[in-house]
Amino acid sequence: MVSKALGKYVQSLHQKKYRHRHGAFLVEGGKSVLELLSSGLETEHVLATPEFADQYRAQLPARLPLSLATEHELTQLGTLATNTTTLAIARQPAAPPLPLTLPETGLLLALDEVRDPGNLGTLLRLADWYNLPGVVLSPGCADAYAPKTVAASMGAFARVRVWERDLAEWLPTLPPAVGIYGADLEGDNVHRLTLQPAGVLVMGSESHGLTPGVATALTRKLHIPRGAGGQAESLNVAISAAILLDNFFRGQ
Amino acid sequence: MVSKALGKYVQSLHQKKYRHRHGAFLVEGGKSVLELLSSGLETEHVLATPEFADQYRAQLPARLPLSLATEHELTQLGTLATNTTTLAIARQPAAPPLPLTLPETGLLLALDEVRDPGNLGTLLRLADWYNLPGVVLSPGCADAYAPKTVAASMGAFARVRVWERDLAEWLPTLPPAVGIYGADLEGDNVHRLTLQPAGVLVMGSESHGLTPGVATALTRKLHIPRGAGGQAESLNVAISAAILLDNFFRGQ
Repeated sequence: MVSKALGKYVQSLHQKKYRHRHGAFLVEGGKSVLELLSSGLETEHVLATPEFADQYRAQLPARLPLSLATEHELTQLGTLATNTTTLAIARQPAAPPLPLTLPETGLLLALDEVRDPGNLGTLLRLADWYNLPGVVLSPGCADAYAPKTVAASMGAFARVRVWERDLAEWLPTLPPAVGIYGADLEGDNVHRLTLQPAGVLVMGSESHGLTPGVATALTRKLHIPRGAGGQAESLNVAISAAILLDNFFRGQ
Repeated sequence: MVSKALGKYVQSLHQKKYRHRHGAFLVEGGKSVLELLSSGLETEHVLATPEFADQYRAQLPARLPLSLATEHELTQLGTLATNTTTLAIARQPAAPPLPLTLPETGLLLALDEVRDPGNLGTLLRLADWYNLPGVVLSPGCADAYAPKTVAASMGAFARVRVWERDLAEWLPTLPPAVGIYGADLEGDNVHRLTLQPAGVLVMGSESHGLTPGVATALTRKLHIPRGAGGQAESLNVAISAAILLDNFFRGQ
């Protein structure tokens, strides 16, 4: 049985306002909760079915508050269509420092108004795959701690560092040697360039591309060649980012 | 006012069984319906708000059955969270021939049990971007005419040819010169290969990879290098396909 107070707290974390107020977020499903428990993030509380708690007793720290719950309760309290295993309440990590010289040695991904949490989660998963030093989100992006973001990140939520910055203000403060890259239909064909994974790769919103203040900060525009005769107008933001990142990491 | 019979017909098309029985499918939202009307596909009926019908009168053929509907009706009858413009009933095109020699001149995408309609739509959009000769679906894939597939394809549903084949039976019938490629963590690093866009690229299910009968039909396994130290276990199927396709089309 989940107490009424705990249930209310869990449900409040569906909303960004309360996630922000409590500095906490939800992690749902066995795979994601196990990623959380094996990460450096702090876990406040785990709700699990007796079966899950039994099976993964070794992964559940003894001092961790654990509440047993039925599948029905987990499904009622969470956001998944069904949850037959577990959900956890995790602490949002404190924002780490973001040194302006970081992009001299690694490639940061910056997202400009990427509003869809599924896309954001897929982009975090990509950042994890390429072991990027982190992802910078504009204030208009989806919440990195929204349940859909966490689910789509497939565990990356527990490993990828995230910062929030006003990109139009932040990008111009970077050292002049830092390359600021963005996708643009009029840009240079990435197949003809040799790119090194350093600098900042900025990806714009699904429907509107880069905001004007961000577009003017780019030092190099990149173009993903379309197949001859292809009629699609554009690619999904995570798809474009994946192709560009693969091009940055070709030489490694 | 939408007639009760038409309303029932529209709602029946939410289900694959009825889409199959009627050889029809739903296209929802202004952008997708305009893609449909400018394509070679046959449109049975358009439901639109008076405002949409007025604004796009030139695109609506005079002989096309048109029913005016309120935003509330469109939303009630369709699958989108809200629909303030239009939805259409389209005819599923007859399956075109699939010559076994097709992959000698172009690259076909084959999908093995890709069950998520959002992923399938994104893959159709990619096939459209690269102007692939078409996409071959295993019987266990999501329906190419499911509303979520159509929406995620961003218009590609109207341009990309789709076939259904049992891949484990079909792949071995291809001429021996046809390359059959698939993603595999143990495969060859795509950055070290020069790939030509011909043959068949097979992508497996989101969670289980290729089915055994399909895996044994591969002639070459491809590996997308992960960033040094990256901890993500895998990439989303559409993300992997995008990176591989970009590698196939580098030399063009």
